[in-house]
Amino acid sequence: QLITPKPHILGYFKANTNSNNVENILSFHQVSPAAERLRYILNEDDDMPTPTLFTEMDTLQREGDELEWKESARWVKFEEKVEEGGERWSKPHVSTLSLHSLFELRTCLQTGTVLLDLDGYSLPQIVDDIIERQIEEGMISHDLREKISFVLLRKHRHQTKKPIHRSLADIGKSSSSTSHAQSRSMNDIADTPSTDQLKNKFMKKIPRDAEASNVLVGEVDFLNKPFVAFVRLAQATTLGGLTEVPVPTRFLFILLGPQGKAKSYNEIGRAIATLMVDDLFSDVAYKARDREDLIAGIDEFLDEVIVLPPGEWDPKIRIEPPKKVPSADKRKSVFSLNELGQMNGTAGGGGGLAEDEEMPVQHELGEELAFTGRFCGGLYLDIKRKLPWFPSDFYEGFHIQSISAVLFIYLGCITNAITFGGLLGDATDNYQGVMESFLGTALAGSVFCFFGGQPLIILSSTGPILIFEKLLFEFSKSNSIDYMELRLWIGMHSCLQCFILVATDASYIIKYMTRFTEEGFSSLISFIFISDAIKKMVGAFKYYPINTDFKPDYVTTYKCECLAPDPMAAMIFNGLAPMPDNSSSLNVTALDWSQLSKKECVKYGGSLVGKSCKYVPDLALMSFILFFGTYSMTVSLKKFKFSRYFPTKVGKLSVSDFSIFMSIMTFVGLDMLMGLKTPKLIVPTEFKPTRPGRGWLVMPFGKNPWWVYLASFVPALLVTILIFMDQQISAVIVNRKENKLKKGCGYHLDLFWVGVLMATCSFLGLPWYVAATVISIAHIDSLKMESESSAPGEQPQFLGVREQRVTGILVFVLTGVSIFLAPVLKFIPMPVLYGVFLYMGVASLSGIQVPCVCQLFWDRIKLYMMPSKHQPDFTYLRHVPLRRVHLFTLIQITCLAVLWVLKSTFLAIIFPVMILGLMVVRKMLDMVFSQHDLAWVDDLLPEKEKKKKDDDKKKGKGKEKEKEKKKPKPDDNEEEVRNSSFFCPLQD
Amino acid sequence: QLITPKPHILGYFKANTNSNNVENILSFHQVSPAAERLRYILNEDDDMPTPTLFTEMDTLQREGDELEWKESARWVKFEEKVEEGGERWSKPHVSTLSLHSLFELRTCLQTGTVLLDLDGYSLPQIVDDIIERQIEEGMISHDLREKISFVLLRKHRHQTKKPIHRSLADIGKSSSSTSHAQSRSMNDIADTPSTDQLKNKFMKKIPRDAEASNVLVGEVDFLNKPFVAFVRLAQATTLGGLTEVPVPTRFLFILLGPQGKAKSYNEIGRAIATLMVDDLFSDVAYKARDREDLIAGIDEFLDEVIVLPPGEWDPKIRIEPPKKVPSADKRKSVFSLNELGQMNGTAGGGGGLAEDEEMPVQHELGEELAFTGRFCGGLYLDIKRKLPWFPSDFYEGFHIQSISAVLFIYLGCITNAITFGGLLGDATDNYQGVMESFLGTALAGSVFCFFGGQPLIILSSTGPILIFEKLLFEFSKSNSIDYMELRLWIGMHSCLQCFILVATDASYIIKYMTRFTEEGFSSLISFIFISDAIKKMVGAFKYYPINTDFKPDYVTTYKCECLAPDPMAAMIFNGLAPMPDNSSSLNVTALDWSQLSKKECVKYGGSLVGKSCKYVPDLALMSFILFFGTYSMTVSLKKFKFSRYFPTKVGKLSVSDFSIFMSIMTFVGLDMLMGLKTPKLIVPTEFKPTRPGRGWLVMPFGKNPWWVYLASFVPALLVTILIFMDQQISAVIVNRKENKLKKGCGYHLDLFWVGVLMATCSFLGLPWYVAATVISIAHIDSLKMESESSAPGEQPQFLGVREQRVTGILVFVLTGVSIFLAPVLKFIPMPVLYGVFLYMGVASLSGIQVPCVCQLFWDRIKLYMMPSKHQPDFTYLRHVPLRRVHLFTLIQITCLAVLWVLKSTFLAIIFPVMILGLMVVRKMLDMVFSQHDLAWVDDLLPEKEKKKKDDDKKKGKGKEKEKEKKKPKPDDNEEEVRNSSFFCPLQD
Repeated sequence: QLITPKPHILGYFKANTNSNNVENILSFHQVSPAAERLRYILNEDDDMPTPTLFTEMDTLQREGDELEWKESARWVKFEEKVEEGGERWSKPHVSTLSLHSLFELRTCLQTGTVLLDLDGYSLPQIVDDIIERQIEEGMISHDLREKISFVLLRKHRHQTKKPIHRSLADIGKSSSSTSHAQSRSMNDIADTPSTDQLKNKFMKKIPRDAEASNVLVGEVDFLNKPFVAFVRLAQATTLGGLTEVPVPTRFLFILLGPQGKAKSYNEIGRAIATLMVDDLFSDVAYKARDREDLIAGIDEFLDEVIVLPPGEWDPKIRIEPPKKVPSADKRKSVFSLNELGQMNGTAGGGGGLAEDEEMPVQHELGEELAFTGRFCGGLYLDIKRKLPWFPSDFYEGFHIQSISAVLFIYLGCITNAITFGGLLGDATDNYQGVMESFLGTALAGSVFCFFGGQPLIILSSTGPILIFEKLLFEFSKSNSIDYMELRLWIGMHSCLQCFILVATDASYIIKYMTRFTEEGFSSLISFIFISDAIKKMVGAFKYYPINTDFKPDYVTTYKCECLAPDPMAAMIFNGLAPMPDNSSSLNVTALDWSQLSKKECVKYGGSLVGKSCKYVPDLALMSFILFFGTYSMTVSLKKFKFSRYFPTKVGKLSVSDFSIFMSIMTFVGLDMLMGLKTPKLIVPTEFKPTRPGRGWLVMPFGKNPWWVYLASFVPALLVTILIFMDQQISAVIVNRKENKLKKGCGYHLDLFWVGVLMATCSFLGLPWYVAATVISIAHIDSLKMESESSAPGEQPQFLGVREQRVTGILVFVLTGVSIFLAPVLKFIPMPVLYGVFLYMGVASLSGIQVPCVCQLFWDRIKLYMMPSKHQPDFTYLRHVPLRRVHLFTLIQITCLAVLWVLKSTFLAIIFPVMILGLMVVRKMLDMVFSQHDLAWVDDLLPEKEKKKKDDDKKKGKGKEKEKEKKKPKPDDNEEEVRNSSFFCPLQD
Repeated sequence: QLITPKPHILGYFKANTNSNNVENILSFHQVSPAAERLRYILNEDDDMPTPTLFTEMDTLQREGDELEWKESARWVKFEEKVEEGGERWSKPHVSTLSLHSLFELRTCLQTGTVLLDLDGYSLPQIVDDIIERQIEEGMISHDLREKISFVLLRKHRHQTKKPIHRSLADIGKSSSSTSHAQSRSMNDIADTPSTDQLKNKFMKKIPRDAEASNVLVGEVDFLNKPFVAFVRLAQATTLGGLTEVPVPTRFLFILLGPQGKAKSYNEIGRAIATLMVDDLFSDVAYKARDREDLIAGIDEFLDEVIVLPPGEWDPKIRIEPPKKVPSADKRKSVFSLNELGQMNGTAGGGGGLAEDEEMPVQHELGEELAFTGRFCGGLYLDIKRKLPWFPSDFYEGFHIQSISAVLFIYLGCITNAITFGGLLGDATDNYQGVMESFLGTALAGSVFCFFGGQPLIILSSTGPILIFEKLLFEFSKSNSIDYMELRLWIGMHSCLQCFILVATDASYIIKYMTRFTEEGFSSLISFIFISDAIKKMVGAFKYYPINTDFKPDYVTTYKCECLAPDPMAAMIFNGLAPMPDNSSSLNVTALDWSQLSKKECVKYGGSLVGKSCKYVPDLALMSFILFFGTYSMTVSLKKFKFSRYFPTKVGKLSVSDFSIFMSIMTFVGLDMLMGLKTPKLIVPTEFKPTRPGRGWLVMPFGKNPWWVYLASFVPALLVTILIFMDQQISAVIVNRKENKLKKGCGYHLDLFWVGVLMATCSFLGLPWYVAATVISIAHIDSLKMESESSAPGEQPQFLGVREQRVTGILVFVLTGVSIFLAPVLKFIPMPVLYGVFLYMGVASLSGIQVPCVCQLFWDRIKLYMMPSKHQPDFTYLRHVPLRRVHLFTLIQITCLAVLWVLKSTFLAIIFPVMILGLMVVRKMLDMVFSQHDLAWVDDLLPEKEKKKKDDDKKKGKGKEKEKEKKKPKPDDNEEEVRNSSFFCPLQD
């Protein structure tokens, strides 16, 4: 027999108490009538989903001389209780019930009146029908009709949530006037919703199609046995002021009982209310044909409940809603006929409470990186994939969150442009300078964001390119080769090579990059960011030396005088060095030397004498304050939970998104307030090449011999590898599964445009650009979306990233026009920007608030320093021995150290090639670690994964089902388990 | 009939399914057989408490060709699971069970073999006995004897916890050798514990008297129905390597079953293991007379379980152990016959899951402040109370934690001594200076700590005293009265007045001080600390002005030259001002003016000319870095969870206790590294009065007219009030109930010694001292004790404060000898100490890590800024409407603002009197707020509390019981609820 459903505890209990038959005790393949019933009704017509239920529980209370129904709790998904004294709603929490009340409820449904599909149009009529039925069945005597009807039609008083400003205004009111806080429905028999109902803001927390279930419990003095009724209306009907929100009522549960047991009635009410919002039971309630179906629903619920031992938990603790609950579909699937075969194995388990064998989520790269084998096959697929999204890439960009993202990334970009521009200018004798850097960034960035496969990637100058340019310039200078022309040819060759890589789908090798490689690469980049920022800061102390011997009292002895060169020396100076400008050379002796500035003094050959010449006061320390202040304020603001204080009215905009901007503003303000001459951001203001004598276009021919054109193929190859690795690793990191990108990626398309931009920039004499990991990650982070929580207590889910092209394009357009923004930008001190750099580096290394690529790596490093008992409960630690995890981490650290050392030498130029080395190391790890361990701490390599699957297949068809059972596909839930440790870096 | 016990769910279920009798459904006063059974056995002999049970669960597993028992989980109180892959123990967590497995277990016990008080001395014998019994009862056939016996006597493999260093050493080992991580007990039939057992460090987590219960579950191929046995041995016996620790086994649960349901057996095993560690069930298991008693135990357990709905909770979540669980005694008391009458009312409730009406904890001042009505009655009681503790006050002080406390408080004290010493010196023309301040602090502090009623209080100079001295000095100067003599008389009068207050038990009025007053006072003191620290810092910017116009390039134009006065002026200067030292006046013209320092230049009448004269470079900014760095490093270190990284081996010493010391060291180091001339701590090195010409003893007569001696009574009165309020409020704050002080307090004794010290200090011409709130709180915080958690997962409890006199005395002795420590102390820059001050102020205001007096006040202020939905779940918010809470806070803020303004004027001198004003305001609040509200947000005033109780009494004896029920005395549990929000200030 195929159908072997879940057995029932109650069935057991009955069966086993009656017969002392040991054989049957632990045999689960017994058909329980409850499960069979449910399977029948739940499969009846599965096409129409049942509406969500909102449950309100009202209790009967005496207010002065009058009886009235007062709302005491409500459920959308979790329970919210009315805090009597506090006149407010409690926080949503998990309903903790007693087994007691559930059994009592079961008895109530067994013995009370159950009216299914009653035609009800108003409360009085429904109440009449219920009482009529009870009298018919002889459950109550005739003379109680009036009394019960009177009680049930009393007014309903709801706990409505007041806006905060009103409660502030209420402050002065006397303590006795508490009735203002609640709305009283006077029109209980009206069939249109009252204004109080309509005004209730809670409505937006309830799904639009929702129906209400009302639970009324209370004690009265005229009954000597409980009056119980469960009613399902044929049509959901608004029953006047019964419900606090204008949601039509579908279910009604009434429990009136004799005096003295209000608490118990309350608990039964909570039990039915909790059941009504249970996904499975509400389905049952909608589809039940008779009383027995409802009882079966309760039994099924009881079978699934989670039990906490009384000695290990305090029932008074309100349990916060969990991050994720098992999906209703999964629970329902037990009853779905077509899935029965599959569920067979697991359903037999001990109630599903045991932790199933978990499997790590594999990092799937998807079909984007499949080797098509066709010419430009990958590129074609990329375009085909991205084209349909193109319009939405624009209209989805118009969102308030984009503003913050643009500001943040813009500042990062211009800082980068200025830094690299300055360095390039030094390295190439101003053939490329800040001006070129700005223009190039703007051009390359905006083109890439407009046409690229992954518009979230930000292009920027990178270290390896800078070093390459430096070496190239020195080479051409010493060999009398024209630098710009040579560079143009290298660019063209490299562009061509990129095209070849694109055409041959070469990007597919990225598949062999696992988390190991990514972590190595991106930690390294982060370290470089951090070390650069700190180097810059230390530079300030060298550039503005502090006179540590300064004694305030002896200020009189500190001076710096410009002394005229002694006449002899001056004469020699004049004679030997013929000055083009005669007038100045003549006037040297006539100068007022004491009025000259330091530079002028040196220029005219004067000598600086005095204790204070070497020193610059305050600037170094002020720079440090600005630098460290910006960094630490940003970190603090990111950590600070604004959300508590400022309800985020403006869509999903989080104040902490603006933390960087706020820090920058604060410290720019502080700097202006102090008025010190700290080094400021200098943006070129005139639109002309940095080096006089070069034009905007580089000509390909004429300056170098012909063989140079061909030979430049060799350095171009290095550049191509460099670009390829840099670009694609960044792209893989951006496209990680954790970011939940929906519009797909385009590795080939990306590389195509990088190639095109290589050639373009070479022709225009602009720097070359490639994806910048850290800024790209920052870009993604600033565009993250979370779901607005629907039911109170439900956790907002990370939905994905606002994928669009607008922010990127805007950033680069702004970079382009920054030349005209110089009057504003010149107020920004450089140390503030270095502080931002430090923040970016640290954030991308350890994840200040956002998940980051290196998070797991970082967590593992921390494990080294913790005794095992204090270690967090990472899922992989449950499956991989600690010493294996440590070994893996150690190898990674070693690789990183080696890379760092290489990076500091001239070998930096082949840096991207070293990433290939990382991939080789990873390949060798297959020999050291088992695939099981690697699957947990890293990802599996493609062929291994395939092999594993093949192995599974070889074992024959018969065992296939068993395999399926033992290695269930990582479902959403397990993924969440792993991600949860991934998304909350700050909790430990 | 009086005995109306708790009914039983199972009883219900059975009763109600069988009879359709509606009347009985909800009547709970039915005697359940289970509860009656339990009452009988639990009351049998209550004098002997049952031992704690350690439960180990082993599952049968196939290792290669061999079967063996492998430990899979263990329980001391919470569950720890063996992580198969990770080869480690999971974190302790609450056992979440399925109802299913509990019912199955019930069936197992109903049908399996139950052997109570079996004489067992070895495992083989016990196994034999069990099998014998089963064969006898016809449950298994004869031929299974060998097979079952074989399986049950297989080896046991335990998961032993490895020390971390071993796992590091293991890193290099190959991945397949996992067997090292576990110890295998080869000597299962030996009756002495193995070395593995003895070496197991887990032993120290198990109480000494513990006994073990072993759960063995597994599937075998030769059975076609389950083999179940529950064994209680007559004597706990060590059964070889059965248990991982050398704990004798008392209980044995065996479940062997047919193949295919291992998971289900596992769940049943977990269920019985959880039951065995349940306080109530383990009692039942020890005392059970037969099978039915055990079943009754399970039923009682089921009646108490907490049920989580499957749709609202994910069973895979491991629930962390709660902070507190309901005490076993409370649960057991239901079955205690003598308490039955009382429990009657509450036991009838719906399973106890509903939150009971909570009552706020009242701040009880205890009998220490009772008005005795006898002469010196309070003082006598104080001495009587404190004397027995006197010896322990010394020997309990020798603990490693004291070192950190002494260092911290010592630094606070000398900083205070220097600051106030300097200010006093200014105010009194050096009659009292830094030297006097040091000596006075040392003298007063050590005497008070030695003899005082509350040795945790730290005496210090305070602001109001300083202002008083200043006004007094000015008054005596302008009226030609001898200041020191006047001061001596005021001191003597004040001392006398203190004695009168002591003799009349006047301190009892402190009873009228509620949380409202305390919060007001201590926030104000904290604000003063903070504002003083910031003022000092701002002072540095004034003292070392920064030249914000400095242009580095024009360094040549910045100088400061000392110009000789022009001869004319010099002559006039020399002529008009006859100099005592002739030689110098003669040499004025002969001076090398350019070599003079700034001070000398001014001294000799030169003029300072130049742009840089007014400015001092770097020092202000460096001071700021030191100041803010010390503050923020301390805050960060306090927040940082060291415990994760450094297992605290050294007793209860927390690394974060040293955070202040570490921060000071770091920034002193930084300062030394920079070598700048920042202002340093200057300690007097010579033992002589600051002002030349005054001796160490002040004579009472001779300098002032006789009426001054009498008139000084009036200012003395002011000083007395000032001292009384300052001293006693600090004492109340220190003696708060939250600090769990055990040795009682001594308000009268405190005041007596303060009076004595007043007179002594006046005679010696030293400053007056009184309790310093902030430093005293810091003292208490640094001496807090927490329990070491016993069972894994149990939360450490705050036990109280290390109450002793040693730390206080040491601090002041150190302060005294600081005069000789000058060579070391001179390296400490003042800004670092100001940073410590800022930290102390902020910490005592908002509670960085420790609870603080103003925590609740501060929390309430934060509520203003939060929309109600984001507000934390404070207990008082459940009971008091938000607008009333806001109103209360607003009144408090207003009072504070008024006090702050008054404090800033000359009225500061009557500052302590203003505290009386606060008490009056609080009294008036009784008219605005209901007593219910005040009980939650504040404390009740004594007479109101009394009145309330009187009211209750008046309502007659009949209703008394009901009252008792409705307003239960705040028990430990509720207190904890309130305290929990109080003890974790950083969680929101």
